[in-house]
Amino acid sequence: MSKKRQLRLGAIIQGPSGNMSAWRHPDAVSDASINVEFVQNLAKQAEKAKFDFLFVADGLYITEQSIPHFLNRFEPITLLSALSLVTQKIGLVATLSTSYSEPFTVARQFASLDHLSGGRAGWNVVTSPLEGSAKNFSRDKHPEHDERYRIASEYLQVAKGLWDSWEKDAFVRNKESGQFFDRDKLHTLNHQGKYYSVQGPLNVGRSPQGRPIVFQAGASDQGKAFASEAADAIYTRQETPELAREFLQDVKRQLVENGRDAEDIRVFQGTSVIIGDTVEDAEQKYQQTAQLVTIDKALEYLGRYFEHYNFSQHDLDAPFPDIGDLGQNSFRSTTDKIKNDAKARGLTLRQAALEAATPRPSFLGTAKDVADGFEHWFTFGATDGFIVRGGTPTAFDDFVEQVIPILQQRGLYRTEYEGNTLRENLGLREPQNQFAVKKALKKEQVSA
Amino acid sequence: MSKKRQLRLGAIIQGPSGNMSAWRHPDAVSDASINVEFVQNLAKQAEKAKFDFLFVADGLYITEQSIPHFLNRFEPITLLSALSLVTQKIGLVATLSTSYSEPFTVARQFASLDHLSGGRAGWNVVTSPLEGSAKNFSRDKHPEHDERYRIASEYLQVAKGLWDSWEKDAFVRNKESGQFFDRDKLHTLNHQGKYYSVQGPLNVGRSPQGRPIVFQAGASDQGKAFASEAADAIYTRQETPELAREFLQDVKRQLVENGRDAEDIRVFQGTSVIIGDTVEDAEQKYQQTAQLVTIDKALEYLGRYFEHYNFSQHDLDAPFPDIGDLGQNSFRSTTDKIKNDAKARGLTLRQAALEAATPRPSFLGTAKDVADGFEHWFTFGATDGFIVRGGTPTAFDDFVEQVIPILQQRGLYRTEYEGNTLRENLGLREPQNQFAVKKALKKEQVSA
Ligand SMILES: Cc1cc2nc3c(=O)[nH]c(=O)nc-3n(C[C@H](O)[C@H](O)[C@H](O)COP(=O)(O)O)c2cc1C
Ligand SMILES: Cc1cc2nc3c(=O)[nH]c(=O)nc-3n(C[C@H](O)[C@H](O)[C@H](O)COP(=O)(O)O)c2cc1C
Repeated sequence: MSKKRQLRLGAIIQGPSGNMSAWRHPDAVSDASINVEFVQNLAKQAEKAKFDFLFVADGLYITEQSIPHFLNRFEPITLLSALSLVTQKIGLVATLSTSYSEPFTVARQFASLDHLSGGRAGWNVVTSPLEGSAKNFSRDKHPEHDERYRIASEYLQVAKGLWDSWEKDAFVRNKESGQFFDRDKLHTLNHQGKYYSVQGPLNVGRSPQGRPIVFQAGASDQGKAFASEAADAIYTRQETPELAREFLQDVKRQLVENGRDAEDIRVFQGTSVIIGDTVEDAEQKYQQTAQLVTIDKALEYLGRYFEHYNFSQHDLDAPFPDIGDLGQNSFRSTTDKIKNDAKARGLTLRQAALEAATPRPSFLGTAKDVADGFEHWFTFGATDGFIVRGGTPTAFDDFVEQVIPILQQRGLYRTEYEGNTLRENLGLREPQNQFAVKKALKKEQVSA
Repeated sequence: MSKKRQLRLGAIIQGPSGNMSAWRHPDAVSDASINVEFVQNLAKQAEKAKFDFLFVADGLYITEQSIPHFLNRFEPITLLSALSLVTQKIGLVATLSTSYSEPFTVARQFASLDHLSGGRAGWNVVTSPLEGSAKNFSRDKHPEHDERYRIASEYLQVAKGLWDSWEKDAFVRNKESGQFFDRDKLHTLNHQGKYYSVQGPLNVGRSPQGRPIVFQAGASDQGKAFASEAADAIYTRQETPELAREFLQDVKRQLVENGRDAEDIRVFQGTSVIIGDTVEDAEQKYQQTAQLVTIDKALEYLGRYFEHYNFSQHDLDAPFPDIGDLGQNSFRSTTDKIKNDAKARGLTLRQAALEAATPRPSFLGTAKDVADGFEHWFTFGATDGFIVRGGTPTAFDDFVEQVIPILQQRGLYRTEYEGNTLRENLGLREPQNQFAVKKALKKEQVSA
């Protein structure tokens, strides 16, 4: 195996790939978001290509205007559990919101998935950007942005406490003596906090990875702070290698400030790719997919970030309208970016909508171009890896067949999995059990 | 295919089978409750034997005193999702409590499992008997018994409303026109009730079975009333065919009172079996497994039904102590039965504890004896089928190898699945979409 620092890759499962209207593409499996065969094939293809993990996004609120593949899709926990027994090595990362769920249930489901998959579970912690989510969960209102992160922070403390309920070797199962477990290695959390009181213990033993891998996917300052406190990996998006490196270094700095090691986190850039025989060919593939999105659909798409604001009431070719603070409490980092961009570059509403709904892939060109781009970002120190999404319904196939082999030839990417668990493949340390650590300290004090 | 009314069977997945200490049995896989290979093999074995479904029980609260296979077990939704892609025909029934979960999430997970499995999902609705559950879910107190059923009743209305969000053929996916779905076939629930307000729609399309099969497993009057209102199947336990027939007829009567058809529900008796070459051999197998349970463990087991009451403070050989109303708010039907039995039959505490912890299987004997027993209950009209649990770690194997063939020879049990979905195999009708029905009525009125 090459000793070089290795690039790491995740593969997105999200409908037919490409933009919101890519289901219309001649090559698209139009019901991909709810097609079992499609997701099984994708999972097996990604595993054959040695991807670190599959990644499933999620949302808790839809309206008529939602993106087609959000209307009718598999729920992430059930989907990844289903894939756990038809794959062997690839990680399984599911998005789940801390704003509308119970830590006991969620800690349990991820621990169970970790057991079922032999140590391949990951949880992408999100706080639910969509205000409407509250209406599906009997709540008066959606918690505001910063409070969502305070809730998430306590939630993760609880989850980690529950995952430490049992030490690794707590289950003795001595048939002769009748001892099933060692009482000394069972720990009851007794958490009493502002948002949660959870006694424990969890009714699942310590999972193969110690605990599932925690991803975080919010890009605001609060999101970053939360990640540096609680996450093992980050899913983010920056425009340039320079901005990405700044982001990565900032996260690692905060990590160290929190008493963690800079190597305790993996940063992933979410990116889409389009590969052609020539740059022109790739550009043409992009245009073909982009043109499937009508301006009406693009306006709906844009509106989704701004609390389903109806942009069609504005002149399409006038400058991007002033709509005040809408969306501050939901997709804050995204709405800020859209507004700042439109202002700085003098975009019209039409331009802004089409840019949002049919974003140009960051990596578009020949397989070599795309491999060069990945290598540049990686060696420049902008990222630890990428979470890859096809920019057209067949772009992921092209990536696997044409780009991966180049990255492997360059010694940047694995040709075989390093281990059996996601943690091993990401090169992350086994977490300590907080209660076992305290117990050991106590024993030391007593004997001192 | 035989035209005779067919017996239906479910198979329990629960640890190594047998009693609470059966993990100590020489033949037991002692970590069965968290062993992936074990559950996969069991699922495949049950499917080969044409069982209607796999059934997983559940609980949300453990203490040091809990039954060993409850301490460390797979969470049901993840377990059955995992099994969905390694089985083809067998139903997948998971227990999940309405007292500590959100209808949007649960409706979604079961709908997703139904899609993943091609129409094989079932939900055993329970209300959580254990008081302690509240402590794991940030609640002040466990809702009292009857209120739990009122909550469950509203919860099921919400879940069914969400499952009707999309009509069967709502997704058009016309690549040329760009129409993804038919707005006329999307229905937003807008539920505002006492316990829940849930807007919808669900972000999963109508599932292959129309909706997952709903099981119910509470035996009190409230439980029965709830079942006759909302369930497609019941998991229950009665002592004699006479009592079972009374129960079944009472449920069917209530069903008709609720405007449903008597054939709209399937009643299953939960039962354990032990098979021997002779009756003595079977008896000896029972004794061998029963003797693994020490009196201390039996007292703990008994205590679990009575809010973890400490029975060891009482004289073992005195009559069953008077402990008042303990347990009324948790396992009501079970605690009533234990107390009434002890009184009527003059049992000592020791006897009552051992009877509870090491119950004699209702069906114990040669394969022919057990088949006779099943046939008798079935033809007597006591039940539509059985949910089978091995009374020792190898009893399920014996049942599959020796009893199933006899039932098949007698034309009582299928040799091939009738259909691909659990609904088809249980012979239950496809449910109507409540919104589509209303729409059709409206159209009729308009045109009249
Ligand atoms: C790259 C990226 C991916 C995200 N994926 C999801 C997702 O799948 N589901 C979700 O509810 N939120 C997702 N989010 C939203 C965040 O979790 C967060 O709720 C929202 O962006 C507001 O937080 P922020 O201002 O810190 O970005 C994602 C955010 C980013 C930056
Ligand atoms: C045969 C049977 C099986 C049950 N299985 C479960 C179970 O797996 N998990 C659970 O929480 N409750 C289970 N219950 C408990 C009931 O759901 C219910 O909460 C409790 O028994 C009180 O209701 P009841 O008085 O109507 O029986 C079961 C009850 C019966 C009768």
